[in-house]
Amino acid sequence: MKTVGIIGASGYTGGELLRILVNHPQAEVKAATSRENAGDPVYRLHPQLRKLTDLKFIEPDVEKIAETCEFVFLALPHGASAPVAKKLLEHGNKVIDLSADFRLKSKDDYPKWYGWEHPCPELLDQAVFGLPEFHRNEIRNAKLIANPGCIATASILSLAPAIKTGAVDKSRAIVDAKIGSSGAGTHVSISSHHPEHSGLVRPYKPVMHRHTAEIEQELTFNGVKPTIAMTPHAIDMVRGIMATGHMFLNREITNQELWKAFRELYQNEPFVRIVKDVKGLHQLPDPMNVVGSNFCDVGFEIDPHGKRVITFGAIDNLLKGAAGQAIQNFNIMIGVDETTAIRFPGVRPV
Amino acid sequence: MKTVGIIGASGYTGGELLRILVNHPQAEVKAATSRENAGDPVYRLHPQLRKLTDLKFIEPDVEKIAETCEFVFLALPHGASAPVAKKLLEHGNKVIDLSADFRLKSKDDYPKWYGWEHPCPELLDQAVFGLPEFHRNEIRNAKLIANPGCIATASILSLAPAIKTGAVDKSRAIVDAKIGSSGAGTHVSISSHHPEHSGLVRPYKPVMHRHTAEIEQELTFNGVKPTIAMTPHAIDMVRGIMATGHMFLNREITNQELWKAFRELYQNEPFVRIVKDVKGLHQLPDPMNVVGSNFCDVGFEIDPHGKRVITFGAIDNLLKGAAGQAIQNFNIMIGVDETTAIRFPGVRPV
Amino acid sequence: MKTVGIIGASGYTGGELLRILVNHPQAEVKAATSRENAGDPVYRLHPQLRKLTDLKFIEPDVEKIAETCEFVFLALPHGASAPVAKKLLEHGNKVIDLSADFRLKSKDDYPKWYGWEHPCPELLDQAVFGLPEFHRNEIRNAKLIANPGCIATASILSLAPAIKTGAVDKSRAIVDAKIGSSGAGTHVSISSHHPEHSGLVRPYKPVMHRHTAEIEQELTFNGVKPTIAMTPHAIDMVRGIMATGHMFLNREITNQELWKAFRELYQNEPFVRIVKDVKGLHQLPDPMNVVGSNFCDVGFEIDPHGKRVITFGAIDNLLKGAAGQAIQNFNIMIGVDETTAIRFPGVRPV
Amino acid sequence: MKTVGIIGASGYTGGELLRILVNHPQAEVKAATSRENAGDPVYRLHPQLRKLTDLKFIEPDVEKIAETCEFVFLALPHGASAPVAKKLLEHGNKVIDLSADFRLKSKDDYPKWYGWEHPCPELLDQAVFGLPEFHRNEIRNAKLIANPGCIATASILSLAPAIKTGAVDKSRAIVDAKIGSSGAGTHVSISSHHPEHSGLVRPYKPVMHRHTAEIEQELTFNGVKPTIAMTPHAIDMVRGIMATGHMFLNREITNQELWKAFRELYQNEPFVRIVKDVKGLHQLPDPMNVVGSNFCDVGFEIDPHGKRVITFGAIDNLLKGAAGQAIQNFNIMIGVDETTAIRFPGVRPV
Repeated sequence: MKTVGIIGASGYTGGELLRILVNHPQAEVKAATSRENAGDPVYRLHPQLRKLTDLKFIEPDVEKIAETCEFVFLALPHGASAPVAKKLLEHGNKVIDLSADFRLKSKDDYPKWYGWEHPCPELLDQAVFGLPEFHRNEIRNAKLIANPGCIATASILSLAPAIKTGAVDKSRAIVDAKIGSSGAGTHVSISSHHPEHSGLVRPYKPVMHRHTAEIEQELTFNGVKPTIAMTPHAIDMVRGIMATGHMFLNREITNQELWKAFRELYQNEPFVRIVKDVKGLHQLPDPMNVVGSNFCDVGFEIDPHGKRVITFGAIDNLLKGAAGQAIQNFNIMIGVDETTAIRFPGVRPV
Repeated sequence: MKTVGIIGASGYTGGELLRILVNHPQAEVKAATSRENAGDPVYRLHPQLRKLTDLKFIEPDVEKIAETCEFVFLALPHGASAPVAKKLLEHGNKVIDLSADFRLKSKDDYPKWYGWEHPCPELLDQAVFGLPEFHRNEIRNAKLIANPGCIATASILSLAPAIKTGAVDKSRAIVDAKIGSSGAGTHVSISSHHPEHSGLVRPYKPVMHRHTAEIEQELTFNGVKPTIAMTPHAIDMVRGIMATGHMFLNREITNQELWKAFRELYQNEPFVRIVKDVKGLHQLPDPMNVVGSNFCDVGFEIDPHGKRVITFGAIDNLLKGAAGQAIQNFNIMIGVDETTAIRFPGVRPV
Repeated sequence: MKTVGIIGASGYTGGELLRILVNHPQAEVKAATSRENAGDPVYRLHPQLRKLTDLKFIEPDVEKIAETCEFVFLALPHGASAPVAKKLLEHGNKVIDLSADFRLKSKDDYPKWYGWEHPCPELLDQAVFGLPEFHRNEIRNAKLIANPGCIATASILSLAPAIKTGAVDKSRAIVDAKIGSSGAGTHVSISSHHPEHSGLVRPYKPVMHRHTAEIEQELTFNGVKPTIAMTPHAIDMVRGIMATGHMFLNREITNQELWKAFRELYQNEPFVRIVKDVKGLHQLPDPMNVVGSNFCDVGFEIDPHGKRVITFGAIDNLLKGAAGQAIQNFNIMIGVDETTAIRFPGVRPV
Repeated sequence: MKTVGIIGASGYTGGELLRILVNHPQAEVKAATSRENAGDPVYRLHPQLRKLTDLKFIEPDVEKIAETCEFVFLALPHGASAPVAKKLLEHGNKVIDLSADFRLKSKDDYPKWYGWEHPCPELLDQAVFGLPEFHRNEIRNAKLIANPGCIATASILSLAPAIKTGAVDKSRAIVDAKIGSSGAGTHVSISSHHPEHSGLVRPYKPVMHRHTAEIEQELTFNGVKPTIAMTPHAIDMVRGIMATGHMFLNREITNQELWKAFRELYQNEPFVRIVKDVKGLHQLPDPMNVVGSNFCDVGFEIDPHGKRVITFGAIDNLLKGAAGQAIQNFNIMIGVDETTAIRFPGVRPV
């Protein structure tokens, strides 16, 4: 049994961490912080947890949490995580950081993509990019996990096999993403106001989106970094991300070859499913089929007219795109079955 | 470990039964039938189950299922269940029927509310109305469970405490229900066509709705049957039911007295939560907070101007309103912890 | 051609007023105010108006507007309208106030329902409740129109005929309303945050809702004020209100008698439609069929079991519930065809 | 005043044609056909039209319609239109065909993209592709209009300016489209079933979509046909299409140059709006801002990292994508102001 703490537990990611951890046989939540809600039962903000836990929010006293918790999940805004993580690491804690603060390996990428100098670049080396499908072995012994971004997770997992075939033009890869409203968290704004977020298809940071950096980093194979041109669109959906990849072919490719590339990467992966059916309504990935679960559904089509491969990656942004993946990393780190407490199917229809 | 079968497993209720049963430590699904989809993997229709089960749909051969399964869940259309249940009972199976065929105790109620004579009225006596909060002891030894209707479950559980106080006019109780689209199942029609089921508030069988009969039956205390005037409205929601009760006061009543009535009935119930908070966004029941779970959230308000008690009952119609409650009954019947495999929190936001 | 101004034009009601007025053959918009957006083209906030008007927001200088505009629409928060209206009336302007500040005839009702003393009670007498179906003649010569509330409009118009028959118990009338998110305006809050306003059925001020006062006032016939017990529920819809009335019968009543009561009130009304069809999907009122229009659809059912009349009233809250009705009043005041510029059908499906 | 008929008036396009035509000062609807609903008032299927027209559906007797109507709108399934159009043309009628039957100029494209031989290829020459922005002069004197497809309209109008600059690679143009459910019409199926069409992002004919052919045809400038790789996704939206274009740059390009290209094509167009704002929530096109209107909003971004131009085209698929554009063509053909009866703003929020 491991003691765990969640710093920043009032948001949606915090709620999902709690939802999973209250049923996790190897974890005991000792701390869930929220400055604004300290003293309130967590079920006041996360009413799905009523009757399932008596936990209350506490003030974010990092020193105290460092003492009482072995593992600490950080669900803090980008930029706010790094100094907290540093302090916790100094106390010997293991840290799973859900912000972007440690995702990029090169300190030069922070000014370029995030607009600030990294406050503790010396930690970048020891941070492990927490995508188990790509870094399982390093995760096992990591002290600091940089949990991947949500659009990044869907994009990396779905584009990787095609890129690995060598058959596509790496310099001209498009990701056209469709994203739900929960990804922006609990902070209210006119852009998340229900009347303004219903029936919309709104380009969101259509160029230079920050997740581009980690996608390119992780899709670098044999030293060749691809150029990813990524544009997300907010749509009328609460949970879910669909990353549609459009890549042009350098040479002909068959369904068999692509199937093989997908299988090689994912056939033993517990949370990646290749969806390419020939019958029924659900022949390709769709976020509606992963909502509520930690799965990433991936699939593809070959376009003989457009001379293109189209890839699809669908996740629940709060699970495989955040809290679920964080627990998957936690499971690997503590040496239990990777699917512990997150093996639940999605909930559909919903 | 019990062997179980699901007859009619292609619908949404079937999908939810499968979702729960594949993770149930005491159940082994031996049969999931679908005439139309026999031979297909269940994940083709229920894509959330891909990688979680290799089960395939089989033809609905009742004899064979009677042999291989101890427990049989019937997720068949109203009217189609009764003869199948009869046959299974003759084979010594235990039957949990999710249709309406055995919910009413009096055979005279069938012509009145359903428009047909009951084909096997002799079974009505042994059928137990599967609402654990009211009939737990009978369920324990039942051979035939009549799993309650979804609107009925939300209505009965939320209205009961106020009615039991004796302070409300039993002859003039209103239930104004709001229902999601999944309650109507997988059968397509113009009324469930997405453009016609978006942004709607459509009265659905506004008078003489069939669930009225079971609500009145179960809210009969001390031999006094109330008159329930119930009107559901289809709204733009997939899962969820909200039953709003409006009852007029015969005498003054205090919050304390009503709190007491709710607590007496539900404080030990694992799946009923009293929601009446004084702070935050979620002060009263709301289906969005139970979706994906087996909980029924209940709450109330006293209206000093209108001289009325308002009650609220929120459930996930596919879980506490169907499959979840069926498993709760199953758990009671097999003598395990009633919350086995259904203790999961809801998924929110979604 | 009348000169008109809109004070408070940045909200949804302001947007709808502009949408109608830019196409109104008898109106010229001389002022549309927004303190926060002064100088911006109105289409920046109301992008549907791009290319249809070059109007810009200006500062809310009441004196100046009083000079340049004959008619002034006030789309201000409750409480903020009264002093502005007073000043405009002193300048001889005609005022159509979309707030609640002049809706109640009795000054004692303000402390009771709104919690404040009315700042200019002397104006209450000359204010006309702007429901044309009930007060057309007074509207014609009014200087100050109190435009009705949205839930109030749907409730009054749908309950009135049944109450007028004398067959229902006036002391026990229920209104269970379902309301869209646009009714709360453009002010952002956690309750309107998209993830928290999707798939919800959330009771909203379930007792003592302020609209109750104007509903009771307007449903007072022959000096008998009914008691209305009203409970709204926020649902996942942007525009639209459905007011479901539940009233108990004092005596038997026939469909013919109710049809007659509805026809007598509404057969000559240009914006009230009696919807009680015997065929097809749309047999009763549904907000989805009035969205984008100034219609109020009303209908009814008689419940022989519950001994009740159920009435339904559906409107677009921003049109018949606000801006559309304001223009209808304006048309009556200036003596043109009442349907001028608002005769457009609803937009469906949407 | 022109006499007009609508063959196939029961669908959503038929409903929109009726909605516009009942208010059109130069059109008198003499016939609205629906085999299944003959004899019913049109407002039974199109309840937004109740009280606005007494028109009834009639049987589709082409001979009779040819006699009574000068103009005939065909809202028939693809393949069913051609023979009807032929017959009407022989009677001297003018035909506006909303199907795909006459959109492609080359008869060889029909087997390739539609899988059938064109039944009356001799008419292809006289058919005019009814996109006024590109073919206004030919439309003026046309006898047969091929009204463009909905995805095609949004794609052609938004991609054209960038392609015309010569700065983008014409052989590798991506269109990633997001489409609402109303585009599939009133035909019910499991894919349009509300529980299966909520919260979805479902690739729809991800390769070889038929609209590709007309997009490439219309984006052929100076004899160079581009290769368009188009993939639509069904999302949870009723009305609206967003066509996102991704095109790679052959050379550097400035915002100014692209602005100029957009302005040259569209500055005098009544129904195309260039949306590229620097402030506020609505800086780029979004279908939510055109719903209910005949506008096509277009905009663009230049991606310095991905070396790409991204274009956005948003329409209401039933209006600029179908009925609205058909009336625009009709207006041009009869020589009235092109905006007659379709100058209304969109309805938002909705």
